[in-house]
Amino acid sequence: MGIITLTTDFGDKDGYAGVIKGVILGICPQAVIIDITHRIDPQDVVQAGFIIRSSHRYFPKDTVHVVVVDPGVGTGRTVVAFESAGHYFIGPDNGVLSLVRDDGKIRWLVAVDNPDLFFHPISDTFHGRDIFAPVAAHLLNGVSPDRLGSPMNPDDMVNLDYQAPETNENGDLVGTIIDVDRFGNLITDIDVERIELIRRQYPGRTVTVMVGNQHIKGLATIYQDRLVGNFVTYIGSRDYLEIAVNQGSAASRLGIGKGESIKVSITD
Amino acid sequence: MGIITLTTDFGDKDGYAGVIKGVILGICPQAVIIDITHRIDPQDVVQAGFIIRSSHRYFPKDTVHVVVVDPGVGTGRTVVAFESAGHYFIGPDNGVLSLVRDDGKIRWLVAVDNPDLFFHPISDTFHGRDIFAPVAAHLLNGVSPDRLGSPMNPDDMVNLDYQAPETNENGDLVGTIIDVDRFGNLITDIDVERIELIRRQYPGRTVTVMVGNQHIKGLATIYQDRLVGNFVTYIGSRDYLEIAVNQGSAASRLGIGKGESIKVSITD
Amino acid sequence: MGIITLTTDFGDKDGYAGVIKGVILGICPQAVIIDITHRIDPQDVVQAGFIIRSSHRYFPKDTVHVVVVDPGVGTGRTVVAFESAGHYFIGPDNGVLSLVRDDGKIRWLVAVDNPDLFFHPISDTFHGRDIFAPVAAHLLNGVSPDRLGSPMNPDDMVNLDYQAPETNENGDLVGTIIDVDRFGNLITDIDVERIELIRRQYPGRTVTVMVGNQHIKGLATIYQDRLVGNFVTYIGSRDYLEIAVNQGSAASRLGIGKGESIKVSITD
Repeated sequence: MGIITLTTDFGDKDGYAGVIKGVILGICPQAVIIDITHRIDPQDVVQAGFIIRSSHRYFPKDTVHVVVVDPGVGTGRTVVAFESAGHYFIGPDNGVLSLVRDDGKIRWLVAVDNPDLFFHPISDTFHGRDIFAPVAAHLLNGVSPDRLGSPMNPDDMVNLDYQAPETNENGDLVGTIIDVDRFGNLITDIDVERIELIRRQYPGRTVTVMVGNQHIKGLATIYQDRLVGNFVTYIGSRDYLEIAVNQGSAASRLGIGKGESIKVSITD
Repeated sequence: MGIITLTTDFGDKDGYAGVIKGVILGICPQAVIIDITHRIDPQDVVQAGFIIRSSHRYFPKDTVHVVVVDPGVGTGRTVVAFESAGHYFIGPDNGVLSLVRDDGKIRWLVAVDNPDLFFHPISDTFHGRDIFAPVAAHLLNGVSPDRLGSPMNPDDMVNLDYQAPETNENGDLVGTIIDVDRFGNLITDIDVERIELIRRQYPGRTVTVMVGNQHIKGLATIYQDRLVGNFVTYIGSRDYLEIAVNQGSAASRLGIGKGESIKVSITD
Repeated sequence: MGIITLTTDFGDKDGYAGVIKGVILGICPQAVIIDITHRIDPQDVVQAGFIIRSSHRYFPKDTVHVVVVDPGVGTGRTVVAFESAGHYFIGPDNGVLSLVRDDGKIRWLVAVDNPDLFFHPISDTFHGRDIFAPVAAHLLNGVSPDRLGSPMNPDDMVNLDYQAPETNENGDLVGTIIDVDRFGNLITDIDVERIELIRRQYPGRTVTVMVGNQHIKGLATIYQDRLVGNFVTYIGSRDYLEIAVNQGSAASRLGIGKGESIKVSITD
């Protein structure tokens, strides 16, 4: 037995995720298939890259993670499969898997190109069904990586097209809102390690987050550190800085969303 | 093998339900995990309380039901686990499980507090992943209740903060719309037992439901008892009084929704 | 082990699909249950009929496909179960299964009427839970078709109430938009066989699709055959003619949707 996870932008109304599961079960009947999400915003490679980075570590080792956010489907873009830190990944080589590549030690990486492992006829618009899904199922069946395709250098993988957090001329750390969750919480790309670094550099000082027209002083640990209706910043369950409103929606209160920048400063 | 059900307000776009499943499968690989819903309205403990009450009985005995609607996450609120009528339940002690406590005979109840069974590090904002999920998996693995935490008196559990149906000065039964389903059907908190009682008290008389500006006479058994486009009241599949429009949406026709009151009267 | 798929209009917020799974697992604990979709537009029998036709073939033989889009629930409409091309189907006899009946060779067909196989008490509004689900589970358990009900003639099944594509007085093929997927792609009822026929009749000529105010010349194979933002027509992954905008939404660009007609012509 083994697990395959799915992270896609197929949505949940059109049956696309369903047929992917049919293809997997046809090849590997004992696969346990878990949806991480099918509601990545259409073609949002960055959002998907962060979701798979945050989510995969909660699954057991040897899980196969399939990520299908694939604006280049049908073009010559490469399909990659690799093992990193005991997890397997397969997806288009468009940057969506570059954060998990960076996180772990890659044991092997291949450019997938063995049509014997694909579902035929191969459509030009749905490689999730015809390439990613069957290859994942074969991988779970124990097919050796060297049968999937040709070895590839991790440095040759496409990197996520995205501006990592950086320090501006005033010494503020400038990051980006990567996601807005169902509760209206704003999830940034500033990870717990960067925040810990700031705290060590400025012990006893106040960390202030500037977002929209708000200056939010001090990191909380739980929503209830602030009054109902107040803004709160904290390290969220994905291990990134988040901005919320206690029992409210930060996104609608601020009127901002994905792609907007935020600043982290030391004040007082 | 055994079943774990999930009832949460996580939504289905952010991957939160997915990581919960990863944690469960890491502890209990043979668990069959079934989503009841992840689309409880954010923090609507009442809606979730009614959904789990109506749904759990359709699962086999020994199913473990996990309910995570948890506005108090990270505060000192208790986590409860218990067995009632052959089903296991785990969730925050905020009332969300009080209807299933009331429905059955509780065989055991504990305040969950054994960190050996949790997922570490424990976040302050996502106990669904770090406490409820792993404890459910251990329970399915056969861990004894006394290892979960300390025994607790069912009377000490928090009750659902909600006005049960009652009879007003005119003898009308006044209830509340608890939920609006996908079809726009209005689901009330007046259960089949109360309706049967009224029918026995007033044999041969007409039961009329007053909701918004409508007086709907007589209970139907199927939608087609009324013309297409007409209002119809009936005991729904959850065993509660519902109001619908045959092949239409009662919610949009009446312009009302969750939380509004309705009256049941005897007329003619 | 075996697979049951679910295609319904229950939505994913009310727990209806969850309880169906509970009922199935109570009868057939080893069933693998896969959601094709629960977001068929309410009571849209045509949309569901096309989805199950396109989706079922990607599942292994012997899969049981349950389709519950059932405006006539509680009335005298028949429930049908049959085997066609190695797949099993069960649903209301309202046309939703007529396309899969037409696609394959039916080995057996019954009008389901054996209450011993139902879940009791049988509600008047939720036969998905009380009839379709338990019968599917018994079928997966190996119950013989003749125990489900009485044999029925496939010609007596209700046909999908829908205008199939036809050629107008100008020689144009006129079809209908059956579905709009998450990406805003318009999915028509003109299948790959009809398009191939046209291509063979008019070799070397240009196939033009007329939809809304657009004339789209030439069939593409991938979205990127057209510039970003341009319209593109192609045979989609469901094997029907689709209309898309490269990295955009054809539905919102054209302001049209389900039920609108399109024309396929030969030009130049």
